[in-house]
Amino acid sequence: MFDLRPVGYVIGLLLVALGATMFIPWGVDIIWETGGGGTFAVSAMITILFGGSMALASANSRSPGLNLQQAFLLTVMSWTALPVFASLPFWLGAPNASYTDAFFEAVSGMTTTGSTVFSNLEDLPLGTLLWRGMMQWFGGVGIIVVAMAFLPTLKVGGMQLFRSEGFDTLGKVLPRAGEIAGSISIIYLALTAACLLAYSLVGIGFFDALVLSMTTIATGGFANTDASFAAFSGLPEYVSALFMLLASLPFIRYVQMMRGSAQPLLHDSQVRAFLITAVALILTITFYRMLANGAHGEAAFRESLFNVTSILSGTGYASVDYQLWGPFPVVLFFMLGLVGGCAGSTCCSIKIFRFQLLFISIKQQIKRIHSPHGVFGARYAGRPVGEDVISSVMAFFVMFFLSLGLISVVLSLLGLDFITAVSGAATALANIGPGLGPEIGPAGNFGGLSDAAKWVLSFAMLIGRLELVAVLILFTPGFWRG
Amino acid sequence: MFDLRPVGYVIGLLLVALGATMFIPWGVDIIWETGGGGTFAVSAMITILFGGSMALASANSRSPGLNLQQAFLLTVMSWTALPVFASLPFWLGAPNASYTDAFFEAVSGMTTTGSTVFSNLEDLPLGTLLWRGMMQWFGGVGIIVVAMAFLPTLKVGGMQLFRSEGFDTLGKVLPRAGEIAGSISIIYLALTAACLLAYSLVGIGFFDALVLSMTTIATGGFANTDASFAAFSGLPEYVSALFMLLASLPFIRYVQMMRGSAQPLLHDSQVRAFLITAVALILTITFYRMLANGAHGEAAFRESLFNVTSILSGTGYASVDYQLWGPFPVVLFFMLGLVGGCAGSTCCSIKIFRFQLLFISIKQQIKRIHSPHGVFGARYAGRPVGEDVISSVMAFFVMFFLSLGLISVVLSLLGLDFITAVSGAATALANIGPGLGPEIGPAGNFGGLSDAAKWVLSFAMLIGRLELVAVLILFTPGFWRG
Repeated sequence: MFDLRPVGYVIGLLLVALGATMFIPWGVDIIWETGGGGTFAVSAMITILFGGSMALASANSRSPGLNLQQAFLLTVMSWTALPVFASLPFWLGAPNASYTDAFFEAVSGMTTTGSTVFSNLEDLPLGTLLWRGMMQWFGGVGIIVVAMAFLPTLKVGGMQLFRSEGFDTLGKVLPRAGEIAGSISIIYLALTAACLLAYSLVGIGFFDALVLSMTTIATGGFANTDASFAAFSGLPEYVSALFMLLASLPFIRYVQMMRGSAQPLLHDSQVRAFLITAVALILTITFYRMLANGAHGEAAFRESLFNVTSILSGTGYASVDYQLWGPFPVVLFFMLGLVGGCAGSTCCSIKIFRFQLLFISIKQQIKRIHSPHGVFGARYAGRPVGEDVISSVMAFFVMFFLSLGLISVVLSLLGLDFITAVSGAATALANIGPGLGPEIGPAGNFGGLSDAAKWVLSFAMLIGRLELVAVLILFTPGFWRG
Repeated sequence: MFDLRPVGYVIGLLLVALGATMFIPWGVDIIWETGGGGTFAVSAMITILFGGSMALASANSRSPGLNLQQAFLLTVMSWTALPVFASLPFWLGAPNASYTDAFFEAVSGMTTTGSTVFSNLEDLPLGTLLWRGMMQWFGGVGIIVVAMAFLPTLKVGGMQLFRSEGFDTLGKVLPRAGEIAGSISIIYLALTAACLLAYSLVGIGFFDALVLSMTTIATGGFANTDASFAAFSGLPEYVSALFMLLASLPFIRYVQMMRGSAQPLLHDSQVRAFLITAVALILTITFYRMLANGAHGEAAFRESLFNVTSILSGTGYASVDYQLWGPFPVVLFFMLGLVGGCAGSTCCSIKIFRFQLLFISIKQQIKRIHSPHGVFGARYAGRPVGEDVISSVMAFFVMFFLSLGLISVVLSLLGLDFITAVSGAATALANIGPGLGPEIGPAGNFGGLSDAAKWVLSFAMLIGRLELVAVLILFTPGFWRG
């Protein structure tokens, strides 16, 4: 058994920080007298007390950084422990929320999925609505840091490809992660502020604009009303689509741009592939809407732009129930939810670089069949890609679909019908938000599912967010032997 | 451009043989006076004339065997050209059959899929029903030969793993294929005869038993009535399940057994994995039926045994509409249709050995993350497996799911709803037979779909049967440059 203290220490500190932020919604509830009561203060104290004790009890470790096992464990445990405490305000405060509901909502928040079990959102205290937005906002920046500082080192799902960015962290994970987190946080904050300003300029009230800007930049998708984005038709949809697209790009490129060089962003192969995919899909749906549904030009374009961007980026806002557009958009939206944005952004799902590598690899296979004795080195973005990266990406893809199948079967065993089970598993694993069908589709919510189904979906959201491998590796006996 | 003549020659001969067999249903229609008329004779003459001319025109080639390109082209062209002619009797003879319907039915037959566009099957002339069974029977033995003689040499989808059986054929494809076909055909005939006898012993009339034995051993699934296997409840279900399982095992093992050694069959890792999977699934569904549906012991077991075996082997008979069993069996049946039987059997789909290799590979990946500098050779069935086999299997898996997604999207564009589009794409690509939902589910058929959807599904059945790569490689420009 290896030393758990460095992991406990960091998680303890994270919990203290999380607890501290709970005073913000507490303050909001007090100032606006919206009836949130003292639940945030109680939750904050429990969280800080627990986190503080944990950090103190683990502080004795002398190791300067984390080893491989510790890095894995920290990655997975932080994403599991934080929702446990982030759910407290829901459990203690939201009307009739069971702990299952509270935990589901917290996981959906922290993983930036955006599925909700609550209905009549507009009746919730402002503090609770703010907390939902804050959780997604924390989750969004958290995953960028994990994706840049941890996953490449852990060689998870082909993420070692992004190791060449100069973030080799093993043995010195913490200082490095801190430095990365610093630059990223400034960008993240600036983008959120810009989004808040833009939402305000197009007429969204301050509180809605605040929460929406946090859940937009996090590609999370929590909104303050059951109607999601339908309440903000028109210009706000353009603003939202723009910022969802910006949030889908690798944040390291913004850091480089901030340091004076826009070239890396403009020449990023992942960025290009993502934007081309997005434009192609938006135009396809626009033309389909005009031809098949008789939709008008601007509205057809705007609704396509907004909803395609929302699903492709895994945000999960809905401005309309696109299930009424006909079978083609339904099936296409299901598929494009499995694509996702760029690695190093706040997006989840399979991600565009893995598709690029898959196509490169398939092309290579075919070349190899043509000329069995030829040597073909795969190249991505101008640089050679090792066999280990390709097979790691393929293993990710395979595991994603095996997990999707398995979770669908388990959900069906819990009584969910085919569409609800399969789309529920997909939306959770890819951290999108809405599923398909009348119950969990864009016009429904997850509140009516059984407790067991909510736990299964919570687990699916977590393993999806942590790129599967990082979680599954903890279940192998070899891991614990060190 | 390379020499097409050896390919034309073999296809010509195959067409002559196909045409010759059309005289059998013609004889049946004449002897039993079932109203088939002369359509089979006309079709036979067209087919023989065309095939004969093609063979004669191509006979001049001096090359002793096939090169790589020719072997690919022959594999794909034979599976495309034969249905074109096999469809003639339906087009000319079946009431109101469009050419689309006739071609769909022929492709569904030859690929041993078993989806049908015809309803009121019991009103069709006996010759036509017999022809449906014969097509599947030819398709079944054809795919065993292709899987043993061609695919390993072509290194398609990990099939090179089965090259070690001693069938290295490149440059001498034809004589070797002939020899293999000889041994296999005897086994195939013997199994069919045994199945016919067994069906007769449990009370199925001769004509039904004949057609069913052909479509059972081919894991094809065409039946003589719209009720599929529901007409033969009881003992025949046990007989059918037994022979579907036998037909799902690698036929080379039967050849070895015939030569005196049962060891290879008993120790085949693929056979064990398949049987364990089948037993686990049958017991799971049996217990589910007893607990959730209140089904009785023997009937619950028998219906589970029959329907699980039918879908897992890709046969596609249905004895009941298992969609009424609840969401768990529906989702599970969808997934297990994507598993399939053993390589070298008449089964299609992803196949059990690919799942074995995927698990081996994922285990390896995880080991490699644990110990980045360790060397781990993958082993399958006690022998080392090269990286090329693993990546070929992964590429197959990836392409299977990309094709599934793409075909689903195209079908949805043609107006099929989510369940029909996704399950239709899956059942065609995996060559199973029934889809899900009210239209193409086990209680429906494919006749009501649009012509465009039928063509897309026909294409999907073909690329599924030919293990995707073999078809897709023809679409690469490099292939035609030689």
